[in-house]
Amino acid sequence: MKSFILLAILLLCISISPTCSTTADPHLPRPLILQFPSTDAEKEDLHMWCQSWRFAGEANNLAPWKTVPEDCADYVKDYVTGKGYRFDLEIVATVTLAYARSFELADDGMDAWVFDIDETLLSNLPYYSDHGFGLEIFNQQEFDRWVDKASAPAIESSLKLYEEILGLGFKIFLLTGRSESKRIVTVENLKRAGFEAWEKLILREKHDHGKTATKYKSERRTEIASNGYRIIGNSGDQWSDLLGYSLSNRSFKLPNPMYFIP
Amino acid sequence: MKSFILLAILLLCISISPTCSTTADPHLPRPLILQFPSTDAEKEDLHMWCQSWRFAGEANNLAPWKTVPEDCADYVKDYVTGKGYRFDLEIVATVTLAYARSFELADDGMDAWVFDIDETLLSNLPYYSDHGFGLEIFNQQEFDRWVDKASAPAIESSLKLYEEILGLGFKIFLLTGRSESKRIVTVENLKRAGFEAWEKLILREKHDHGKTATKYKSERRTEIASNGYRIIGNSGDQWSDLLGYSLSNRSFKLPNPMYFIP
Repeated sequence: MKSFILLAILLLCISISPTCSTTADPHLPRPLILQFPSTDAEKEDLHMWCQSWRFAGEANNLAPWKTVPEDCADYVKDYVTGKGYRFDLEIVATVTLAYARSFELADDGMDAWVFDIDETLLSNLPYYSDHGFGLEIFNQQEFDRWVDKASAPAIESSLKLYEEILGLGFKIFLLTGRSESKRIVTVENLKRAGFEAWEKLILREKHDHGKTATKYKSERRTEIASNGYRIIGNSGDQWSDLLGYSLSNRSFKLPNPMYFIP
Repeated sequence: MKSFILLAILLLCISISPTCSTTADPHLPRPLILQFPSTDAEKEDLHMWCQSWRFAGEANNLAPWKTVPEDCADYVKDYVTGKGYRFDLEIVATVTLAYARSFELADDGMDAWVFDIDETLLSNLPYYSDHGFGLEIFNQQEFDRWVDKASAPAIESSLKLYEEILGLGFKIFLLTGRSESKRIVTVENLKRAGFEAWEKLILREKHDHGKTATKYKSERRTEIASNGYRIIGNSGDQWSDLLGYSLSNRSFKLPNPMYFIP
């Protein structure tokens, strides 16, 4: 335990933006980048500590964070390539479907469901397996090259859920942080992975660049709502998919221990 | 895996309130009580499945839920009485303190921090160890008898955090779902457990009974804010401590797999 406490005390605030300082505007949420250094924790404790780190992320206690703690590299790899991640994804899909089925849709066809794409419908694990499963800082150019291949597989439980939600009569809006320039490859990838139909695919336009995902996605949900749609559900692997304003009736957080998008 | 999928499909919606029906007002959040039945999952898979169930709860995907799934009774007991719970609590305290320290308080003494009490500052584990660690449906009368003993111990990591936050100059508001009739025993218990000072202890008054915790706590945060305080932080083990309106700048979710309060 000593090493754990030592580690906890060693918590660092690495300032990488103007908002990460003690003079930050208090109205800007989460101005602190938390980065845990390596630890000399016992192996058994390390596994449990990495699990606690992952929990803290899923409950949005940790945000914003930059990379997976170095000593949790193996833990995260084992998790995302093993049963743990699959079970987590399946339970989220199960509770999401139970909610969707319980909802009585209106006859006007204006009940909507918003899905994020990356790590929500499509899995970029083949890419992240080549980039340390979150140990490396996100590299947009490298990731763009991967996106251009249009070969990300579907998350199986999400594909089944997607088809069910479509079948229930919800209008599906795909709201992704990907750039508008990636529209063609994104559509190609979605179709190839089995996602056949949607109401609208929304990507970042030029004027969206530089905005946080929370702001960009909130603005786009506002547009969806202003067109008369009622956003009943929202599924995403990032809290920035789900928080902000123009919120859905109910949102569902898919697991993702590999990266954090503000 | 078969048994897991079977289990997932068997997901039940047990209607226990007027809001738990398919004709529920869509503007009422989370109208579905999710109750997982028992499972014949392999022992190894069961542990992992219960962990996924717990994750789903911490990420607020599961809410509202009624009791711990029967087959996860041992898992939850092992978790809350073992290192897992303690590590989770310690990481939350660590990130909370890092945020609190990074915040530059104003000179007017109006920067506030809200703490819930049960399972946030005080631990009711001695009570829940006699009541199946969440396997039994919450019994208010039984719990009241326990509260009257005023003998709940402090959560150690929370006590340290509390003292640090007090020392930084935040005004502490204790906002609990306990009834006003429990004020004296609650103060007695808090003092006995080491919590020495606070700005205000807020308990449910008569007109608060019947309100959800989310509504009651939002109303009281609004009162705090209307008195000129800025709610910088909010710590609680229930999402109903943290969601609603008059939100804090940043909130921290402590783990609790034993019960859910809407």
